[in-house]
Amino acid sequence: MPTEGLTATELTELAQQLRVDSVRATDAAGSGHATSSMSAAEIGAVLLANHLRYDFDRPDHPGNDHLILSKGHASPLLYSLYRAAGAITDEELLTFRSRGSRLEGHPTPRLPWVDVATGSLGQGLPVGVGVALAGRRLERVPSRVYVISGDSEMAEGSVWEAVEHAAGEKLDNLTLIVDVNRLGQRGPTRHGRDLSAYARRLKAFGWHTVEVDGHDTEALDAAFKEARATEGRPTAVLASTVKGKGVHEVADQEGKHGKPLPDATAAIAELGGVRAIHVDVAKPTAARTLHAVPSGHLTLPRYEPTASGGERVATRDAFGEALAALGSARGDVVVLDGEVGDSTRAEYFAKEHPDRYFECYIAEQLLVAAGVGMQVRGRVPYVATFAAFLTRAHDFLRMAAISRADLNVVGSHAGVAIGEDGPSQMGLEDLAMMRAVHGSTVLCPCDANQTAKLLAATADLKGIRYLRTSRGKSDVLYGPDEEFPVGGSKVLRRGEHDRLTLVAAGTTVPEALAAADLLAADGIEVRVVDLYSVKPVDAQTLWTAAEETGCLVSVEDHHPEGGLGDAVAEAFADGRPAPRLVRLAVTGMPGSATPAEQLYGAGIDAESVATAVRLLVEKAVVR
Amino acid sequence: MPTEGLTATELTELAQQLRVDSVRATDAAGSGHATSSMSAAEIGAVLLANHLRYDFDRPDHPGNDHLILSKGHASPLLYSLYRAAGAITDEELLTFRSRGSRLEGHPTPRLPWVDVATGSLGQGLPVGVGVALAGRRLERVPSRVYVISGDSEMAEGSVWEAVEHAAGEKLDNLTLIVDVNRLGQRGPTRHGRDLSAYARRLKAFGWHTVEVDGHDTEALDAAFKEARATEGRPTAVLASTVKGKGVHEVADQEGKHGKPLPDATAAIAELGGVRAIHVDVAKPTAARTLHAVPSGHLTLPRYEPTASGGERVATRDAFGEALAALGSARGDVVVLDGEVGDSTRAEYFAKEHPDRYFECYIAEQLLVAAGVGMQVRGRVPYVATFAAFLTRAHDFLRMAAISRADLNVVGSHAGVAIGEDGPSQMGLEDLAMMRAVHGSTVLCPCDANQTAKLLAATADLKGIRYLRTSRGKSDVLYGPDEEFPVGGSKVLRRGEHDRLTLVAAGTTVPEALAAADLLAADGIEVRVVDLYSVKPVDAQTLWTAAEETGCLVSVEDHHPEGGLGDAVAEAFADGRPAPRLVRLAVTGMPGSATPAEQLYGAGIDAESVATAVRLLVEKAVVR
Repeated sequence: MPTEGLTATELTELAQQLRVDSVRATDAAGSGHATSSMSAAEIGAVLLANHLRYDFDRPDHPGNDHLILSKGHASPLLYSLYRAAGAITDEELLTFRSRGSRLEGHPTPRLPWVDVATGSLGQGLPVGVGVALAGRRLERVPSRVYVISGDSEMAEGSVWEAVEHAAGEKLDNLTLIVDVNRLGQRGPTRHGRDLSAYARRLKAFGWHTVEVDGHDTEALDAAFKEARATEGRPTAVLASTVKGKGVHEVADQEGKHGKPLPDATAAIAELGGVRAIHVDVAKPTAARTLHAVPSGHLTLPRYEPTASGGERVATRDAFGEALAALGSARGDVVVLDGEVGDSTRAEYFAKEHPDRYFECYIAEQLLVAAGVGMQVRGRVPYVATFAAFLTRAHDFLRMAAISRADLNVVGSHAGVAIGEDGPSQMGLEDLAMMRAVHGSTVLCPCDANQTAKLLAATADLKGIRYLRTSRGKSDVLYGPDEEFPVGGSKVLRRGEHDRLTLVAAGTTVPEALAAADLLAADGIEVRVVDLYSVKPVDAQTLWTAAEETGCLVSVEDHHPEGGLGDAVAEAFADGRPAPRLVRLAVTGMPGSATPAEQLYGAGIDAESVATAVRLLVEKAVVR
Repeated sequence: MPTEGLTATELTELAQQLRVDSVRATDAAGSGHATSSMSAAEIGAVLLANHLRYDFDRPDHPGNDHLILSKGHASPLLYSLYRAAGAITDEELLTFRSRGSRLEGHPTPRLPWVDVATGSLGQGLPVGVGVALAGRRLERVPSRVYVISGDSEMAEGSVWEAVEHAAGEKLDNLTLIVDVNRLGQRGPTRHGRDLSAYARRLKAFGWHTVEVDGHDTEALDAAFKEARATEGRPTAVLASTVKGKGVHEVADQEGKHGKPLPDATAAIAELGGVRAIHVDVAKPTAARTLHAVPSGHLTLPRYEPTASGGERVATRDAFGEALAALGSARGDVVVLDGEVGDSTRAEYFAKEHPDRYFECYIAEQLLVAAGVGMQVRGRVPYVATFAAFLTRAHDFLRMAAISRADLNVVGSHAGVAIGEDGPSQMGLEDLAMMRAVHGSTVLCPCDANQTAKLLAATADLKGIRYLRTSRGKSDVLYGPDEEFPVGGSKVLRRGEHDRLTLVAAGTTVPEALAAADLLAADGIEVRVVDLYSVKPVDAQTLWTAAEETGCLVSVEDHHPEGGLGDAVAEAFADGRPAPRLVRLAVTGMPGSATPAEQLYGAGIDAESVATAVRLLVEKAVVR
């Protein structure tokens, strides 16, 4: 028998209420995942009534536990729990999946009690690891993280990245509950209801596991107690359940996934009818506020322009130095590394702020997810790896936007300019990927001072902000006092007789400048714009350049699709008269070569740009 | 002692040669991963001399074993093996990483003996699973698959997707060798040289494991024999090694990753000098050709246009039916599902061709990787899941292009039009992602007959080809005999007085047509182009439309970045006079709502499109 909260009988009644409410919500909506909710009803009931510590009136209370429904399609269960807790009304419950309702098909943080959006499977545990890591290593609050996962999603590699990391970090404040209901969307899972298959795997990674009948409220209650009492490692409660449990017409049957019950009225009757059990959810005992974060004045690194005798500096180096400085100024900044901190220079931060540096090893999905988890707990995370390898975490970045997460993402080793390592290491798709993330900011600095300033700016932006850095040293073009507002640009060359405008960003800015010099020697004046803010883009400057020069030539170290050239074109997508546009980008498949040879091979070095412009002039494409 | 091939002493000498050659190649290049190659020298030597069956003169021999170097940065070792086998000359070895050389920083199939590009870690095993699956389930040839992996990359979730799948499929023709050299790029790995940590995990998933001293040639030889003799499950040989083994100055030290040795001459002397050992690599015993694939006449499904009384059909349904038909016509077609075959309709193929249908469960990285592996063995794979979840496999798609893979990718549930499920399930970034994949083809059909025809066309294309399908039923617009060449488009409305051109694809085509009807009722004629081939794009038709109507309005169920609108803009990126462009796309964050409400909410339904056009006319933006 539970020693606190509801009795086993009361819990069973509550579970039936959750089932009934899941049936009602999906029936009202005419769609939704009733059976997937029903299998986890006892899990939800026992958690809510006897274990969760949560103040629904204060979702930002630092002592709150975190409940992440990784199997987001079982949202009817979650919303039924909210109804039982009195957080939403019965009326709102029945708005499920309707236009304007906060109760979306899959949970999102439009509801204040939802930390992160779920619905792309295998993401709840990795994010939960981030939340638990922040709680354990940064705050030491007693709050716990509960992740309810489906069995199907245990096939996702991201789950095992998280399993490994949680054990490695000894996250005993993390409990994973796997609702082993045997049936995926299209049929049986690989392991059916064999709890030991999951237990063996999790134990091998260092987890504590408890195998229970997922419809036995006493067993579940004991399992959650055991999880809370287990020290030094995370616990997985493996619960054997029946999909569609409680309604004979659908229970344990294939073909019943993702739809309301065929006869809701009969089902509700079979489940004992509508109930109105209210659960007084225990509030967190600790009234602590978020760990106070020291902050001070930001002193960014300053670089002497190369033209004035300063050294050449790689933007990745400037990023690392500025990040370390930002860390000194702001105690809420945390950095997560994908085992390439020596290359991205994130390790500069580690040297000064080791307590706020998180090594995630080569596991980019976990890397991004842990960052998302950390911002749930009020941190300002920077996750950094090679731009190319961020593609590994694309789905997590996409979902982070749906989670309304505030997350900084840094991709180094942009483009063919990295040189000999070859295409597998080159970020040539990252701008396309990051621009298409909803509400993102995409910044592409070309020199050290610009990198430092833009890095500092990212800390206060909302949403997903991306900073793209380069591997090789380059000239410091700007003075250390120059400002670079997000959404701005810099016109680096402007003349009375500009024949066209070169638009560049990052590595291609010095190439465009050198091309302008070459062309000037031929008597061809061109404008040069440093479009460091790729999203949002400085449309006004592009419009002016279009009016005054008639032709824009974008030069980018990226594939032609989705990058700088498209950002330029989009500035004219409101129906205004568009200028002539020419794009220079990486169209071929690079091999190994020196950085200079790569830029030449791709046709984006100064000589190639100048040649392209001369051709445009000869063909009278430009005025 | 080895009972066949080289003796232990000879193997040790060969290993030293491989080390020396790795030192020489990286020294000549001035970059590259010498120490990562040196740790695996005995592994390579024993494999090449005593176990691999490979005809270097016939890399397409179906009896060949497959050697996949997942730790692609250790390419010097691979190239040194090729030199020992006589496949490349000593002269070519020293072209490593230079411009034009086939010996790239990370291996690619520019070398005929390289099946797939590696260098993004954690991809070798998943691809190897695909190769082994084809060998086992389709061909039953005795060929084996060897994957040499680093220890750092065992943190990638994709590895564990593959570990799970290989055990589930009982792939005893697959051997994983983990070079446990303790040091990642930036420092020690999580498990150091603790072989048991890896063994525990792999065993829990059902693998056979052998732990060996990775510099003991006899132990390695015995381990590979044991792997070959193990039935019913894959084997992992866990080899404890020393990074930089053999050269005191670098051995087992941090900070020596990814660079040539400081003193190559001294290192070569310490390793016993340059050698010229030649290995006669055993040729495959079986002279079988690839499993003959029956083929016949393709009879695509035919759909009666809705205007003639035919039913409305979802493009995903047409895809499933056409895919099943394609499978009947071509025995080389295989289909891989990410546990959503009932939703994507890939299961229609499964019902008719169960032997060529591969359930990969919810593991999208493995899904794509296994497809890549299958095309290595001459199959024509179709991998299918929700468009949104393909983002999970972005890095694998990127690498597949570098692998010169011929792979079909199908993403269903495109856009907000899916309705109530909400944003986590909506493909709103897939066009941006797939367009930016090098050499890709991107097709976005709007009706059933078009879907069937385009699906059939994909089978004979090269590179990565993407087909985007929709969830909801829609009108059959075209007759079953209409042709849809890749790179083409259809002008669906054209008049003398077209004020502008609506450019749509997929779900937005019927909306654009309905908008044209609404506008026609107001006396506003507009052209409508169905731009089903998003890449390559039918530039000529867009140019003509621009000339004749002056303004193009793209309408897409996708974020504004990287999709249809950008494809339209890119058609004018050669400097020609550009038309006015207006983009209608999904700019907000959708919630739950009906499909019609979603399209309305995003401003891409017929009414919204008509309203936008009326506004353009009123503001005299268009003529």
